[in-house]
Amino acid sequence: MSKSSTVTVRETPVANVASARAGGFTIQGETFVVQTDQRIELVDLTSRIMDHVRRFDIREGLVSLWSMHTTCALFINEFQTALLSDIKRFLEQMVGRDAEWMHNNPEHSDCDRMNADSHLRALLLGHSVTLQISGGEVVLGQWQRVLLAELDGPRARTLRVQVMGV
Amino acid sequence: MSKSSTVTVRETPVANVASARAGGFTIQGETFVVQTDQRIELVDLTSRIMDHVRRFDIREGLVSLWSMHTTCALFINEFQTALLSDIKRFLEQMVGRDAEWMHNNPEHSDCDRMNADSHLRALLLGHSVTLQISGGEVVLGQWQRVLLAELDGPRARTLRVQVMGV
Amino acid sequence: MSKSSTVTVRETPVANVASARAGGFTIQGETFVVQTDQRIELVDLTSRIMDHVRRFDIREGLVSLWSMHTTCALFINEFQTALLSDIKRFLEQMVGRDAEWMHNNPEHSDCDRMNADSHLRALLLGHSVTLQISGGEVVLGQWQRVLLAELDGPRARTLRVQVMGV
Repeated sequence: MSKSSTVTVRETPVANVASARAGGFTIQGETFVVQTDQRIELVDLTSRIMDHVRRFDIREGLVSLWSMHTTCALFINEFQTALLSDIKRFLEQMVGRDAEWMHNNPEHSDCDRMNADSHLRALLLGHSVTLQISGGEVVLGQWQRVLLAELDGPRARTLRVQVMGV
Repeated sequence: MSKSSTVTVRETPVANVASARAGGFTIQGETFVVQTDQRIELVDLTSRIMDHVRRFDIREGLVSLWSMHTTCALFINEFQTALLSDIKRFLEQMVGRDAEWMHNNPEHSDCDRMNADSHLRALLLGHSVTLQISGGEVVLGQWQRVLLAELDGPRARTLRVQVMGV
Repeated sequence: MSKSSTVTVRETPVANVASARAGGFTIQGETFVVQTDQRIELVDLTSRIMDHVRRFDIREGLVSLWSMHTTCALFINEFQTALLSDIKRFLEQMVGRDAEWMHNNPEHSDCDRMNADSHLRALLLGHSVTLQISGGEVVLGQWQRVLLAELDGPRARTLRVQVMGV
C-alpha cells in the first residue's frame, strides 16, 4: 500500500494568461497569486474579482474561480471580523487537528506537513466558486463576499480565474 | 476592530432580466423571488427551474442558480418529508444556535439578527448550483431535486437564474 | 404526510451523447458509468476526465461533472490511501449510520435502503464539480484529483460529463 499521493500532470503547464474568441463569445483564463500569513486565514477576494471582470467586454456570462490547491478552499459568506472568528472556530471544532489521522502517521503517509485537518476542512468548504456576470459585473448579494480559506498556511496560493460570455 | 460587515456594491444594480446573444449562443439571467415561512425551511425549486429552462431555445448548455443571500443556501438532494426532517435536524446538530458565537455578541458585532448558526449552516451546503442542460431540459437524476435551504427566515429570498447555451 | 419522495421526470430521457455547435463554440454532453464495489468508496476519476477532454478541439472552456444520484458525491482532494481512510472515517464520524433518522423509519418513509446517512454525507461533499479547461486540458493543481464518493454502494453509478468552449 503506497504512502504517496497521485500526482496530476498535464501535457503542458497552464499558461499564466490564455484566451479564445468565437463570434461575439469571449473566454479568458488567468492565474492569480494570493500570499497568506497565517496557518488558518480567511481572505476577501471580492474586490479583486469584481475589478478583474470589469476589464472585459462581457455583458452576460460566468466567472469561474478555482483554487489550485487541496488545502486552500473558496466559498461565499459575509466578511465581518466576528463572523470570521466563528468560521475558523467552527472549522477547528468540526475537524480536530490532533486526532489520529492516518495522513499524519509516517507509517502510512509520506506527507510531512501533518495536515489531515486541512484536507478535511477543505472538503466542507469546496475548491471553487462559479459566479454569474450580468450587466458587465459580477452578480453578488449585498452581504456576499468571495472568500479564500487558507487552511495550511502561510503560503503563496495560486488561483485560476476564468471569465466567459458575450 | 470593526463590528460591521463589508458591503458589496456594483456600479449598477442587477437588472431583473438581462440577455445577450452571439451567433447561435444565448445567455439570459433573471431574478426569482421565493417567500419562506419558517426560520429553517427546505423549498423544492425543481419544477420552477425545469419550466424556466424549457422556455428557451437552448438544446445544450448550463443553468446557474445563485442565492443572493449569505443565510440562504442551494443544494441537491431527495425531497421526502422524512428526509427533510433529518436534514434540518442534522444542520441543527452540526451548528448549535446557542453556542457562544462572536457574531451574536453585541460587543463584537453590529448584527442584530443573532444568526451565526445560519451563516455556518450555509457554509456546509453552499450558495449555488450549476446544472447541465441537455436535449432542451435540465439534467437531473430520478431522485434529485434542486432545494433551497432557508436558514434564517421567514423572508423573501432573491435568486438569480442564468441559462446559457446553444 | 407522504412517505414517498418526489420523482423527477423529463419530457424525454437524457441521450447518452448530445452535442451542439454555434460558430466556433462547441458543447457536448456524455454519460459515464462507474461501477463501485463497497458501501463507501472513493474513486479517482481524474485520468478519465482528462482523457475525455483531450478528445475535443476545445482550447478554453469548462467541463461540468454531474452525479445523477443523491447518494453519490463528487469533490476535489488528494488521492492517497491514508487520506482516503481519513475521509471515510470523517464522514462516518460526522453522520452516524445508526442514529434515529426518520428516513430509516418505515412509519415515516417508504425507502427500504435505510440510507439517511448516505444522503447526509452527500450534503457535505456536493453532487457536482465544474472545472476549467485551458490550453486544451483540464486545469488542476499538482495534488488535486477529481473524486467520486460512493456513499451507498456497491452500485453502477451514472455521471454526466459536459464539455463546452472554444
